Amino acid sequence: MKIDINCDLGEGFGRYTLGGDDQLMKYISSANIACGFHAGDPTTMEKTVKMALENDVKIGAHPGYPDLQGFGRRAMDMHPEEIRAMVIYQVGALKGFVSAYDGRLHHVKPHGALYNRASQDKLTAKAIVEAVKSVDPNLVLYGPYNSELHKASVFNKLTFHCEAFADRAYDKNGQLVSRAEPGAFIDDVKTCAQRIEKLIQENRIETIEGNFVDMKAQTLCVHGDNDKALQFVKSLVDKLKTLGCEVG
Amino acid sequence: MKIDINCDLGEGFGRYTLGGDDQLMKYISSANIACGFHAGDPTTMEKTVKMALENDVKIGAHPGYPDLQGFGRRAMDMHPEEIRAMVIYQVGALKGFVSAYDGRLHHVKPHGALYNRASQDKLTAKAIVEAVKSVDPNLVLYGPYNSELHKASVFNKLTFHCEAFADRAYDKNGQLVSRAEPGAFIDDVKTCAQRIEKLIQENRIETIEGNFVDMKAQTLCVHGDNDKALQFVKSLVDKLKTLGCEVG
Amino acid sequence: MKIDINCDLGEGFGRYTLGGDDQLMKYISSANIACGFHAGDPTTMEKTVKMALENDVKIGAHPGYPDLQGFGRRAMDMHPEEIRAMVIYQVGALKGFVSAYDGRLHHVKPHGALYNRASQDKLTAKAIVEAVKSVDPNLVLYGPYNSELHKASVFNKLTFHCEAFADRAYDKNGQLVSRAEPGAFIDDVKTCAQRIEKLIQENRIETIEGNFVDMKAQTLCVHGDNDKALQFVKSLVDKLKTLGCEVG
Amino acid sequence: MKIDINCDLGEGFGRYTLGGDDQLMKYISSANIACGFHAGDPTTMEKTVKMALENDVKIGAHPGYPDLQGFGRRAMDMHPEEIRAMVIYQVGALKGFVSAYDGRLHHVKPHGALYNRASQDKLTAKAIVEAVKSVDPNLVLYGPYNSELHKASVFNKLTFHCEAFADRAYDKNGQLVSRAEPGAFIDDVKTCAQRIEKLIQENRIETIEGNFVDMKAQTLCVHGDNDKALQFVKSLVDKLKTLGCEVG
Repeated sequence: MKIDINCDLGEGFGRYTLGGDDQLMKYISSANIACGFHAGDPTTMEKTVKMALENDVKIGAHPGYPDLQGFGRRAMDMHPEEIRAMVIYQVGALKGFVSAYDGRLHHVKPHGALYNRASQDKLTAKAIVEAVKSVDPNLVLYGPYNSELHKASVFNKLTFHCEAFADRAYDKNGQLVSRAEPGAFIDDVKTCAQRIEKLIQENRIETIEGNFVDMKAQTLCVHGDNDKALQFVKSLVDKLKTLGCEVG
Repeated sequence: MKIDINCDLGEGFGRYTLGGDDQLMKYISSANIACGFHAGDPTTMEKTVKMALENDVKIGAHPGYPDLQGFGRRAMDMHPEEIRAMVIYQVGALKGFVSAYDGRLHHVKPHGALYNRASQDKLTAKAIVEAVKSVDPNLVLYGPYNSELHKASVFNKLTFHCEAFADRAYDKNGQLVSRAEPGAFIDDVKTCAQRIEKLIQENRIETIEGNFVDMKAQTLCVHGDNDKALQFVKSLVDKLKTLGCEVG
Repeated sequence: MKIDINCDLGEGFGRYTLGGDDQLMKYISSANIACGFHAGDPTTMEKTVKMALENDVKIGAHPGYPDLQGFGRRAMDMHPEEIRAMVIYQVGALKGFVSAYDGRLHHVKPHGALYNRASQDKLTAKAIVEAVKSVDPNLVLYGPYNSELHKASVFNKLTFHCEAFADRAYDKNGQLVSRAEPGAFIDDVKTCAQRIEKLIQENRIETIEGNFVDMKAQTLCVHGDNDKALQFVKSLVDKLKTLGCEVG
Repeated sequence: MKIDINCDLGEGFGRYTLGGDDQLMKYISSANIACGFHAGDPTTMEKTVKMALENDVKIGAHPGYPDLQGFGRRAMDMHPEEIRAMVIYQVGALKGFVSAYDGRLHHVKPHGALYNRASQDKLTAKAIVEAVKSVDPNLVLYGPYNSELHKASVFNKLTFHCEAFADRAYDKNGQLVSRAEPGAFIDDVKTCAQRIEKLIQENRIETIEGNFVDMKAQTLCVHGDNDKALQFVKSLVDKLKTLGCEVG
């Protein structure tokens, strides 16, 4: 049994730093690297790509809305054609660095509000899938199981890897419980690991209501931008190993 | 005898348009497309790349300083490592669009103040040459004859095409006469074409002082952002044909 | 009978120009000047403020979403506190130029998608009204009759001037007919002027369905960013004079 | 004997934070607040202005080059008219927040590369002085003793407060020793305080060469963006009190 662990990295900008990228790189298997729109700048991108290659971590582009002040977390009413173009732009820019260091771009994962909208809005999902496929049809798209992104990928024959959040609760519809709700976060690493084990072995996850819903996950997202991130990732990886799950 | 004619295109931004790209495309052989830093945005870039492919025009990236308000014409004290990273970023972004439409990126030409600084500053020139070569060693770099950009390209074994300005005067050192000086611009198309002919046939150009200096040109730059641009390009191409010079 | 005519001006950015500000200034009585977020830059703002003062035109701040590429026409999910702060910022910045030339800032009119959202969303409207009032309680807010902006202004005792569009059709609910619908625009100047006359004299306007709805207008908006703008404004002002309406 | 202590604050941006503003506010007497160009955003500016007012700290605008990625530390070749306009813009924007909270804007201090260039370049200095004076002739400008900024202020009758750096070495010309040189920084608080005492009492400072040069200081700059900043400021204030110097 094998599972990918992905983390959003390279989210600094200029003088500003964010997250302990160099430490996290040692435990994860996929890095989603910000591409300069919601975070990241050319210098940060170059540095993060190099770091990922040194740590043998798969490299993904992490495109977001053009909104540095809002960190890409504020939805914007962009036309699907604008979305497609801005995803091509960001993926292309990151690919430039990957090429410069003789690496290979592995996947794309939309960021923040773009991820959320693309999960629910057909046209946004379609625009992203088309953009990714047009730059390189061998790229993998990361997103939620059964989302519009998932469906559009299947329809367009783009490889899609279902992503689950190790430390977030889901509801009976398979949706993430809002960050504002009690119980939205699962702090206990052991609980997280057991949920993940069930998810991988049985393709279902326990909901906040106490039932189970169908779900698939080829990749798990861990958060890198808080103080406990590193400790959480290390513990999760350990637990997964105990359960016979290999990260990669 | 054959000569390339290049023009800076795709220099609009969002609601703002600039230049008659669709008309100019019919007469030139190389388009230098702005990459979103001094001008251009993803939607404009996509549109311009498509247009270049439809017109069978060679596509070049046209990276500039991150200064939309100054249109990349204000020099910025950037560290060579910052310059290398921002050139990789911009070239990569444009290459994304070229890949998306199954085209081929042919060349890179720095823009405005970056072009000027790279012509005279060794470290800036080196940073740009390394950036271009790292993204794709088959790319061609456009820049002034005998400039630091030229020397750094030769040193790094990157193909370099010397660029001359058809409608600008040169001084005895082979430098462009400043736009502020009288006689800096040559309005008469016939005079321009004759200068170009001599340049191509004899590898020298008449200076504003009335002497001749050595110069080479594989490509001629024409300006696209003024009202008379289209008329000038058409006339120039006609004259060149009369002189037995083929554009391409 | 007197009516204000307002126009969005100063909407260039850096090298990019938009609209015939210098000509339009001669016919209008209020200029809404872009503040650098959706359009405009410091140099353009300074020039436009000077021009307004020279033409004895009332000066208004025209704040928009931080989205130059989208020209402030793409709604963004910003928190009311972010909206309040960004309106204070933009109004303050414009006021800086007005102070520098010993003028007086007269009004504020939100731009594009911010105007639309503030018309319908209570929290956005409240944030804008509070921002404007906090910078200077004597400022006037321009917006649609009976909108959330209107209500929030009345509630907070901020002077509000109802704005109508001379060249746009309204529906039975007093809402602008979408630009995408047939009949959304009224091209005939005479028809426009007659609609405006009725609006001013009887406080009602004929709808696209052929009925009348209540409406008030202290100010009329004319568009400045198309080729026919100047001709339209001139004709409108002439017609209004014929009808005994003074612009001011 | 009284001395002002100023610190650059409000230098976060969106999701990014920088410096321990809330703690530093308790010890300083003047805050230079970033205005959104090199750092700072409307929300951060509003919060920082409120904090300064709560701590009874004098508020200053801290305008910089439009270069968030470079944190305003990269010189840009801007025309004096562009500089004047961008300073009016930034000062006006900050003044908007100060007005909104019934405070008073006290001073202006240019940031980073703009500060350096204005110290040595007459035209840049003149542009800044004119900008500040035009927004409000009662504002105070902070800058180096005997610099071009100083001279332009005297010439234009704008109040100027000479600023010295408590923790930086000066050379025999009264210039700051470059950060790259050994001995550029003075880590020992006691030494700093004694240097300051001599500076205030005798209007001269010991140079890195061991001589003394004339210098005046009405205000001392302390750095807020490093880990030891708070400890340094607290110790400095204590030492100054011991020496009979009141901060304010």
